[in-house]
Amino acid sequence: MRPFVHVNVAMSADGKLSTRERRQVKISGSSDFSRVDRIKAESDAVMVGIGTVLADDPSLTVKSPALVAERRERGNDENPVRIVVDSRARTPTDAAILHKGKGERIIACSLQAETEKKDALSKYATVIVAGEKEVDLSLLLSRLYDMGIRTLMVEGGGTLIWALFRAGLVDKLTCYVGNMVIGGVRAPTLTDGEGFIDETNFIRLSLFGFERMDSGILLTWMVERQGT
Amino acid sequence: MRPFVHVNVAMSADGKLSTRERRQVKISGSSDFSRVDRIKAESDAVMVGIGTVLADDPSLTVKSPALVAERRERGNDENPVRIVVDSRARTPTDAAILHKGKGERIIACSLQAETEKKDALSKYATVIVAGEKEVDLSLLLSRLYDMGIRTLMVEGGGTLIWALFRAGLVDKLTCYVGNMVIGGVRAPTLTDGEGFIDETNFIRLSLFGFERMDSGILLTWMVERQGT
Repeated sequence: MRPFVHVNVAMSADGKLSTRERRQVKISGSSDFSRVDRIKAESDAVMVGIGTVLADDPSLTVKSPALVAERRERGNDENPVRIVVDSRARTPTDAAILHKGKGERIIACSLQAETEKKDALSKYATVIVAGEKEVDLSLLLSRLYDMGIRTLMVEGGGTLIWALFRAGLVDKLTCYVGNMVIGGVRAPTLTDGEGFIDETNFIRLSLFGFERMDSGILLTWMVERQGT
Repeated sequence: MRPFVHVNVAMSADGKLSTRERRQVKISGSSDFSRVDRIKAESDAVMVGIGTVLADDPSLTVKSPALVAERRERGNDENPVRIVVDSRARTPTDAAILHKGKGERIIACSLQAETEKKDALSKYATVIVAGEKEVDLSLLLSRLYDMGIRTLMVEGGGTLIWALFRAGLVDKLTCYVGNMVIGGVRAPTLTDGEGFIDETNFIRLSLFGFERMDSGILLTWMVERQGT
């Protein structure tokens, strides 16, 4: 068993998450910001890849005081469990995600991670080792389920999202498409990694809904069940 | 003066035009196919980059007999003028675009193109030289306008589309978003090239419309006028 996995991203009209320098840019607006904050507040856990931590240093806290209050009323921590997929335990010990706001943190690494780094991070987070080189995401999700995590929001980046799709571990994709062209063959996209070669391996989606939001459009896709 | 430039593409939900091997894949369906055929039939010219010619060998002909008949009734050639942006005149002399269907062809190259190659192509197409290394797209569009071309449809690929956006030469973008995830950091995207670094240089769009089509969604964006 694993949690329900909801990938949420914002990309430009030409499918970029940011510039080729990976600098964070404003793609959506305040309505989308509130929507994302709500999904986060309603999730048991929120996950990012180490690339995103190193590029953006996000705190992944719930921003709205009302949503924080709702969580408290439900008997939850102020923030969902924050998880970094970080095979070599490279998360800086002063990363915002480890210090800002209350709540549990998990660093998911592989056997590649040095003991020193794991020990240093274990002061601030639960360190889970899953997988030999890369993090074994199926195993990780199974562990998270065992810890009581039923809903998991994934905020990026493209490498983690690719790995989740490849492993058949995504249930829902919300993609905000912003009203700008960024360009760049090296700019990060929604799914990076190696990509599928054979059409029969493509992950098939079903368009669940769409709505104009801020100056762009929000697309909601459900992942069609794969014949596994 | 230049033609009205309409870029039309189909991309996967994760913003890829094809796999990393650049193999053409089915992203949309029959409704979108008809829509694209109609835009083509109603355009004075249709343009692709040399990368697309080498990867897909498209003919760019109008497929619907009814649309072909409409063009004839208007006194037009069966197909719009077909243009390849091809700085070094690498279009193969047996390319489908040079042989399939009736109508004019233009190969737009730069001073980099060898005389032999230009001579060989001039048997099948009008060869226009514009620009020193890359094709000077502003100059090319101005020449096309002088030849009577008022509406230009651009079918890709990502390198040409990037160059047009960078030069501020795009008026409208229709982007069909298909219901699949392809992935791949090296898969071609809507706009490749170097990309913008500075947020103030991003091309700003206005969401003109959107509609569910086949198993995906068609997004129509108008390019906001730049302060030039």
